[in-house]
Amino acid sequence: MQFLSDNAAAVHPAVWAAMQAADAPQPPYDNDALSQSLDEAFSELFGRKVSALWIASGTAANCLALATMVPPHGGVICHRDAHIESDECGAPGFFTHGAKLMLAESENAKLTPQAIMDVIGPIRRDVHRVWPHALSITQASEAGCVYRPDEVGAIGALAREQGLKLHMDGARFANAVAFLGCSPAAASCDGGVDALSFGCVKNGAMSAEALVYFDEALAADVKFRRKRAGHLQSKGRFLAAQVLAMLKGDLWLQNARAANAAAADIASGAKDRLLYPVEANEVFLRLSAIERDALRAQGFGFYDWGEDGARFVTAWNADAGDVGKLSRALAAL
Amino acid sequence: MQFLSDNAAAVHPAVWAAMQAADAPQPPYDNDALSQSLDEAFSELFGRKVSALWIASGTAANCLALATMVPPHGGVICHRDAHIESDECGAPGFFTHGAKLMLAESENAKLTPQAIMDVIGPIRRDVHRVWPHALSITQASEAGCVYRPDEVGAIGALAREQGLKLHMDGARFANAVAFLGCSPAAASCDGGVDALSFGCVKNGAMSAEALVYFDEALAADVKFRRKRAGHLQSKGRFLAAQVLAMLKGDLWLQNARAANAAAADIASGAKDRLLYPVEANEVFLRLSAIERDALRAQGFGFYDWGEDGARFVTAWNADAGDVGKLSRALAAL
Amino acid sequence: MQFLSDNAAAVHPAVWAAMQAADAPQPPYDNDALSQSLDEAFSELFGRKVSALWIASGTAANCLALATMVPPHGGVICHRDAHIESDECGAPGFFTHGAKLMLAESENAKLTPQAIMDVIGPIRRDVHRVWPHALSITQASEAGCVYRPDEVGAIGALAREQGLKLHMDGARFANAVAFLGCSPAAASCDGGVDALSFGCVKNGAMSAEALVYFDEALAADVKFRRKRAGHLQSKGRFLAAQVLAMLKGDLWLQNARAANAAAADIASGAKDRLLYPVEANEVFLRLSAIERDALRAQGFGFYDWGEDGARFVTAWNADAGDVGKLSRALAAL
Amino acid sequence: MQFLSDNAAAVHPAVWAAMQAADAPQPPYDNDALSQSLDEAFSELFGRKVSALWIASGTAANCLALATMVPPHGGVICHRDAHIESDECGAPGFFTHGAKLMLAESENAKLTPQAIMDVIGPIRRDVHRVWPHALSITQASEAGCVYRPDEVGAIGALAREQGLKLHMDGARFANAVAFLGCSPAAASCDGGVDALSFGCVKNGAMSAEALVYFDEALAADVKFRRKRAGHLQSKGRFLAAQVLAMLKGDLWLQNARAANAAAADIASGAKDRLLYPVEANEVFLRLSAIERDALRAQGFGFYDWGEDGARFVTAWNADAGDVGKLSRALAAL
Repeated sequence: MQFLSDNAAAVHPAVWAAMQAADAPQPPYDNDALSQSLDEAFSELFGRKVSALWIASGTAANCLALATMVPPHGGVICHRDAHIESDECGAPGFFTHGAKLMLAESENAKLTPQAIMDVIGPIRRDVHRVWPHALSITQASEAGCVYRPDEVGAIGALAREQGLKLHMDGARFANAVAFLGCSPAAASCDGGVDALSFGCVKNGAMSAEALVYFDEALAADVKFRRKRAGHLQSKGRFLAAQVLAMLKGDLWLQNARAANAAAADIASGAKDRLLYPVEANEVFLRLSAIERDALRAQGFGFYDWGEDGARFVTAWNADAGDVGKLSRALAAL
Repeated sequence: MQFLSDNAAAVHPAVWAAMQAADAPQPPYDNDALSQSLDEAFSELFGRKVSALWIASGTAANCLALATMVPPHGGVICHRDAHIESDECGAPGFFTHGAKLMLAESENAKLTPQAIMDVIGPIRRDVHRVWPHALSITQASEAGCVYRPDEVGAIGALAREQGLKLHMDGARFANAVAFLGCSPAAASCDGGVDALSFGCVKNGAMSAEALVYFDEALAADVKFRRKRAGHLQSKGRFLAAQVLAMLKGDLWLQNARAANAAAADIASGAKDRLLYPVEANEVFLRLSAIERDALRAQGFGFYDWGEDGARFVTAWNADAGDVGKLSRALAAL
Repeated sequence: MQFLSDNAAAVHPAVWAAMQAADAPQPPYDNDALSQSLDEAFSELFGRKVSALWIASGTAANCLALATMVPPHGGVICHRDAHIESDECGAPGFFTHGAKLMLAESENAKLTPQAIMDVIGPIRRDVHRVWPHALSITQASEAGCVYRPDEVGAIGALAREQGLKLHMDGARFANAVAFLGCSPAAASCDGGVDALSFGCVKNGAMSAEALVYFDEALAADVKFRRKRAGHLQSKGRFLAAQVLAMLKGDLWLQNARAANAAAADIASGAKDRLLYPVEANEVFLRLSAIERDALRAQGFGFYDWGEDGARFVTAWNADAGDVGKLSRALAAL
Repeated sequence: MQFLSDNAAAVHPAVWAAMQAADAPQPPYDNDALSQSLDEAFSELFGRKVSALWIASGTAANCLALATMVPPHGGVICHRDAHIESDECGAPGFFTHGAKLMLAESENAKLTPQAIMDVIGPIRRDVHRVWPHALSITQASEAGCVYRPDEVGAIGALAREQGLKLHMDGARFANAVAFLGCSPAAASCDGGVDALSFGCVKNGAMSAEALVYFDEALAADVKFRRKRAGHLQSKGRFLAAQVLAMLKGDLWLQNARAANAAAADIASGAKDRLLYPVEANEVFLRLSAIERDALRAQGFGFYDWGEDGARFVTAWNADAGDVGKLSRALAAL
């Protein structure tokens, strides 16, 4: 009964099928027909002309995006809890050649215009200071919360006003869109996002994320940077196949809805313990060490969240039985 | 009838099977049982204690290895035709933070002690010059030629004498060992190799190479560097499964033998055209533009090699019929 | 009547004299007799064997020191107000190839063991997190406050316990030692400092700081890094001459004492306005915008410090008359 | 009787005087009046609007220029003997974050359009290869030879045609212009040079070179890069003063003429030994080991040049007596 993370869940059968169908002779790298069709597939999804490429990990997708947005002497404003700050072993510093992450603080791990301005405001505009060149927001956030279209739009407007590019880490973008019930464009590019890490691995794929550029000028050299980072796999057709399988028939949305529903079920039994609103597939609960021990003794797997909390993550293939048991166990504490 | 490259060939059924068997709940990243068993599997293969990790591309494996061997202000001696020099878009410069590739010239794309000393000799040992800290050799070489154990040993001895670490790019290591008929250790670590990029993708895997450290001290921080380069995939079990499937029952050797045999068949019909000895799964032939056109008109796919040559590469699943046709077509020119 | 900074003050006559005396034929770079004598001169000053080299700026000295202490995937703990964080345009990220500055908060811009542990404590020791490899403290601090020998010692002990190297930014080290009245060793290496940026430019030199390594192993490749950063000047004898002139007859201490005394005089008239204790050559005062305007109208130059404060810095050649006027003007507000 | 290098020669009295005149209160960094006047001074010199800034070393000037011209995944074509390749400890790799130097070969260490195309021609235009983004030529070359205006123009035209930026390393630009007898513009920007490292240190300054941008768009972020490299000295007025003193009354040309004349005198006695035409202030001679020993025994200092040669460099303050003695000693060999 594992609720540790969605990042190790099973691969969806449709993804397996697509990969196996791709095992026919094709040109290497991204010269195969599948890889070549990504631009079109994502252009259709977002209702505008975009550039899209597969990348094997979310860390690489995020950091390649940032590397095309910020010079080495620049900075990226992100939330203090952002994955790029906390969980990527300094990868942004590697890909950007030393650009600085500039940390903002706000509720629910969601940036706000105010929080962003609190960072920008004090920066003296001379050569002694690092200037921000980009913003990075996470949809859904590291607290499992979702930016509404108007919230994205407000940040996008601020970005344009301040001359900043806007990156969206969408490791759980599917979960956000499933929650919002809006178009994927409404949750991202309509609000001014310039590049989106479109997550697949946490949502049923094996080893392929997509990096989608709404601002195509930014994409000009990203393929050189991907190659140079060792991320241009020779059998790239298998990554393209995964991404396309996720898009086909809106599998990405279906999977996310299932994961979100499971999270909602878990939360339903513990409403007074919620640390953050449950808007995606993560549930953060106030739980004492004793309570956590009690749950673990019943076979539930999850991570601690600070000293008095715990995080439960559901995946596309969450087992309804396990979810029900957890919900009841929480109610019974 | 494609002889363009082995880097886009099909995935071996045993690799598919192993990947599917890995699709059970496991901890993420490389905390799964398969990933954790790589050290042992490669220690057994090489008959000594080694550290091994999966990496999704040969470029990343090579460059991570070099990054653990050379400081940013140092250099790596390699052949002018080495893949790291020619075909990785400057990836060594990225992973090593700017270290210099120092190019040696010798026959058959194989470094020799003399060629290495021709590079080292003129270097004034002061702070104005870049000093070499590592050597990188390719087994089999970019000309499809194989270092004999004593040749590796001579280079290894020179490396130790000069205080250099020795990296082996083994994108086609399997083909080299199949040709030599020796142990994998005899073709690498017995001769002083410190780290080996053990190629799998060109030999039947999908998206996993292995990086094997014979000098374990060098491996101390490679996992940080892998993570930081966005190469620590969350569902790493699928990469480990591929590598282990290649090792199981010596599939890696069997596949290489098949590819080598096909190359030998092709070469047999064109002995007077050979640009280099055929010792692995690549055949380089002297062929005029007219001859190349004639072959392509018959449906054969291959790359030009300079102005008067062509390269034919065979894969583990080379079709005997296609090979025979090519052999006859070459003889008939 | 300028109190903007000590970093633009005049060059001391003894420094000029030493530079002119150095204008005789000498080998280039740091092969001249003056440069070659730095190790000995600083070994004598600190009473132990050290390695020392000239560097043209404090930013370069700080960042070269850090680059020899921390790998690209590591981190450096420093105070939120540290010069390396705030005023070097991301130079640490450049010299270290992307290592992260990890910000601690404590009083008077002085790190404490507790503040350091507040940073270290939550770091999960896996490859997803950046680990600290070094600490950097500023003596005197960015708030003009001085670490006592036992405070340095406590931080040094923690550094050793945690496996961290300890860097001291001594842009105003002379002012700190002048305040403490102790030996330079007591204010630095006795407490466990591994490398010290020994500031000269703010204290009467023109364009030379010294980087002093107490842990000589760390110095092994710093001369390569200095050259590679374009900081090995060909007429290095003129930098060595400046540094040696500062040491001769304890000019560095005399100059610092003069600057400190001027700061004390300024503070004496405004004791109830002090934002931090005045322990070096900087005075931070609570002053409203109206009060600041009034002072500027009287001809005093200084920087604002936040919205309700101001910073006054004194140099080695502070004019007693100007200092007296400022002191009286403050008292009269 | 030293002819080792011009890089350690004395500082010209006019430079000393200008530095001392600069020792008055001024704003720090490059906010002083002298630094602020560099744009104008160089605009006048070159007869067009340029951006100019002081930098303490030629290595830093060259590498900052390249860093503004080439992305990390790009390349710079230069001569195999270029200073940036041979004598800067990999500094270009540091400042450009790993861009590759692509080596061309041609006579007299001067690039030619043909030599450049020999490098460019074979580069496959895909993401696996490093593409050149800039050319760097040295005026006068490392063999002491000078590009004529039409030679610069031919390279400049090729650069524009190929979409490359053109950098000129002018460590001895003054000597080249003195030889050519043309305007400084004719020797550089008229032919298409985008940025020039304008050397002063080898020509009578102490610690200041100038970096001149003819393509001002390229200069947009160079001041950030200079700061980030630790090269923004706080008492920058002393560097500006040096550069301005070199320009005043064409001191730069006078000094170069004196050095060139001395070199011509040396060469006059050894015309049959010349390895390269003597066009600046360097004389390269065919000299056996025995002959070199004989010269050294007479008190002449110089560097070996390969196994059968020697290099003699003259400075602005070459002693006529010493020059005469050397000339006679060479004739007497």
